[in-house]
Amino acid sequence: MPVNLSAPQAQQLKPVKGVELGFAQAHIRKPNRKDLLVVRLNTGTQVAGVFTKNRFCAAPVTLCKDHLARNAEIRALVINTGNANAGTGEEGMHRAKQTCEAVAKLLDVQAQQILPFSTGVILEPLPIERVVAGLPDCIENLKEDNWLNAAEAIMTTDIVAKGSSRTIILSGKSVTITGIAKGSGMIHPNMATMLGYVATDAAVSKQALESIIDYAVNRSFNCITVDGDTSTNDSLIMMATGQAENALIEQGSADYLAIRDAMTGVAIELAQAIVRDGEGATKFMTITVEAGRDSDECRKVAYAIAHSPLVKTAFFASDPNLGRILAAIGYAGVDDLDVNALQLYLGDVLVAEHGGRAASYEETQGSAVMKEAEILVRVVLNRGESAATVWTCDFSYDYVKINADYRS
Amino acid sequence: MPVNLSAPQAQQLKPVKGVELGFAQAHIRKPNRKDLLVVRLNTGTQVAGVFTKNRFCAAPVTLCKDHLARNAEIRALVINTGNANAGTGEEGMHRAKQTCEAVAKLLDVQAQQILPFSTGVILEPLPIERVVAGLPDCIENLKEDNWLNAAEAIMTTDIVAKGSSRTIILSGKSVTITGIAKGSGMIHPNMATMLGYVATDAAVSKQALESIIDYAVNRSFNCITVDGDTSTNDSLIMMATGQAENALIEQGSADYLAIRDAMTGVAIELAQAIVRDGEGATKFMTITVEAGRDSDECRKVAYAIAHSPLVKTAFFASDPNLGRILAAIGYAGVDDLDVNALQLYLGDVLVAEHGGRAASYEETQGSAVMKEAEILVRVVLNRGESAATVWTCDFSYDYVKINADYRS
Repeated sequence: MPVNLSAPQAQQLKPVKGVELGFAQAHIRKPNRKDLLVVRLNTGTQVAGVFTKNRFCAAPVTLCKDHLARNAEIRALVINTGNANAGTGEEGMHRAKQTCEAVAKLLDVQAQQILPFSTGVILEPLPIERVVAGLPDCIENLKEDNWLNAAEAIMTTDIVAKGSSRTIILSGKSVTITGIAKGSGMIHPNMATMLGYVATDAAVSKQALESIIDYAVNRSFNCITVDGDTSTNDSLIMMATGQAENALIEQGSADYLAIRDAMTGVAIELAQAIVRDGEGATKFMTITVEAGRDSDECRKVAYAIAHSPLVKTAFFASDPNLGRILAAIGYAGVDDLDVNALQLYLGDVLVAEHGGRAASYEETQGSAVMKEAEILVRVVLNRGESAATVWTCDFSYDYVKINADYRS
Repeated sequence: MPVNLSAPQAQQLKPVKGVELGFAQAHIRKPNRKDLLVVRLNTGTQVAGVFTKNRFCAAPVTLCKDHLARNAEIRALVINTGNANAGTGEEGMHRAKQTCEAVAKLLDVQAQQILPFSTGVILEPLPIERVVAGLPDCIENLKEDNWLNAAEAIMTTDIVAKGSSRTIILSGKSVTITGIAKGSGMIHPNMATMLGYVATDAAVSKQALESIIDYAVNRSFNCITVDGDTSTNDSLIMMATGQAENALIEQGSADYLAIRDAMTGVAIELAQAIVRDGEGATKFMTITVEAGRDSDECRKVAYAIAHSPLVKTAFFASDPNLGRILAAIGYAGVDDLDVNALQLYLGDVLVAEHGGRAASYEETQGSAVMKEAEILVRVVLNRGESAATVWTCDFSYDYVKINADYRS
């Protein structure tokens, strides 16, 4: 079960003026589930995106990048689950284009004004006829107050829908930010089988929005990992509809910092929700590496810990087998690391220093920390001033079960 | 259960003149199991070793390197299971030295002529008094015909003992090579919770033996992975006692090539045995990456596949979810990889090319291959002439169970 996470209530996900959402049960892979979503954006909306760095990126990812690069006004997003349209070659690209064309026709815009997204199994042809057949239903129920349905429509192996909303005041105007996301395996920086959509009704310049998404992704979705696998389809989209009647936000202003931090806050909440609902997760772990020479080495150490199956199974077992953490630090790839100089903490408990177990440490202390559902692992390298944080979950029987059964 | 692997019969592990082995039940962690081994070497034996590159390497690893660097004649090895003496700081080093001193005293040699090895839990003090108390038993049953007992004495979570022997003729003289090893989690190049010992009675110069161990390790223990974790204690030792009455083998001769290939063959068999007995393994996978620009990029791709939990769980499920393999190739870190140019084979079946599923592929073909216990995954990058092979196993419920329960 997800770790300290439940689905949001519908009324918690506040409408964003200028964003309408409509869903359908298109039976793309399985019957009786919402699996198709259209997000319609009012004219004047700014849109920015970041995408997977996987060389096998899916057809819709390539098409999204292409459409964003053309600088045409983006008027809608279309998202299907059940099939990732990845590893599908030229025919996959053709079908992604057909999807955009079908949405464009229904909304009376151009295909290049549509951003397509797919998630699900890889290497199988997208059932384009089902996608197209489901689109009229999506258009029919388009409305602003549909965020929870939208969050549900993009789920795959997620157990709970993921959404977050907040309202801030910018120079006297109330502004709303609402986001949804889906996980839940293959979660890793750059990025994951992760789809995230964060919208605001604030007026934000294109340049400012692009700066915000870079800032936010490096503090949220690029800090999480479930299994170290990076997906073919990961995408994060930020949208600003400009319907809140605030003065246009340019980079560097006080309003810029406020909206940046609020959108980053929503992104962090969504990213953490993905880890809390990681496949088979029973624990939520925060790995913090401090006092490193640069953030790169801090991230190396944090990810070595977060990716180690031995560490993750020990956390599943609530076993303070901290030697496995030390081993992971040791093979993180920081060649000149002096292991005698670092400290390892579990929660507030100093566990290891001087290359060995701390004199003050007793295993009952470690066991007490390990029994918690939320655990902090803190490594102090004592060789610089940089830091990095990574969030991850443990590795359970259910991870194997979910991924062994996924296609059956 | 191990994949196509059973323990060797005692008579299959041929004695090596000049190597005597003696074991004890020292109750280092658990009662009623062999957990202490002494290997006595006749005078004149050449010894070479390669060790873990983990920065948190264990005290005995540091001491082994030190003793080998002193060029004193190595006269014995001492190996305990149940405790890795890693992450144990200065006290750990003290206890590793005490172990060597105790063996040296019993054998009437110097402490620097002893190589110590430990494997088991990390970050707990080595129970030195139990080790020392067990040593006289080891000395008492030292004999040349004790290799199977020795293989059993170094097991931790291994299900079966691992050993291999072969005899070759060098310039008319019969020469024996016998090796033993233990796994079975934390297996990864450079290297693993892996201990391996390969001895021959051939006369081999120190320089030639060092060349042989480099050659062999890069084609055996550095080509395997179970879970991607690299241990604090991995060690491979090669010994040549010079009792076979052959002419001293120097690098480059015909005899050199023959003994090199035979010792490498034993090392490959032991390394593969470790994977076949990987924690929870039900499948043995060979990942071959061909036609790459250099061996480094071939290894990157092979290890990305071999380390992916999603790939490993799909193999456990006998599910030809080949999209997960393509995704792993895509994030392997080969930045300019053209995914449209590569071919992916499962066994003899062409599965993917031109960035998608091969036109000729039918899932029944993939399913048939996946049902086998031994599976070949072959990636042809079509951009050069280099190649690399990695052996790994699948990822099952039992992997989680073994590693969640290991200390309980």
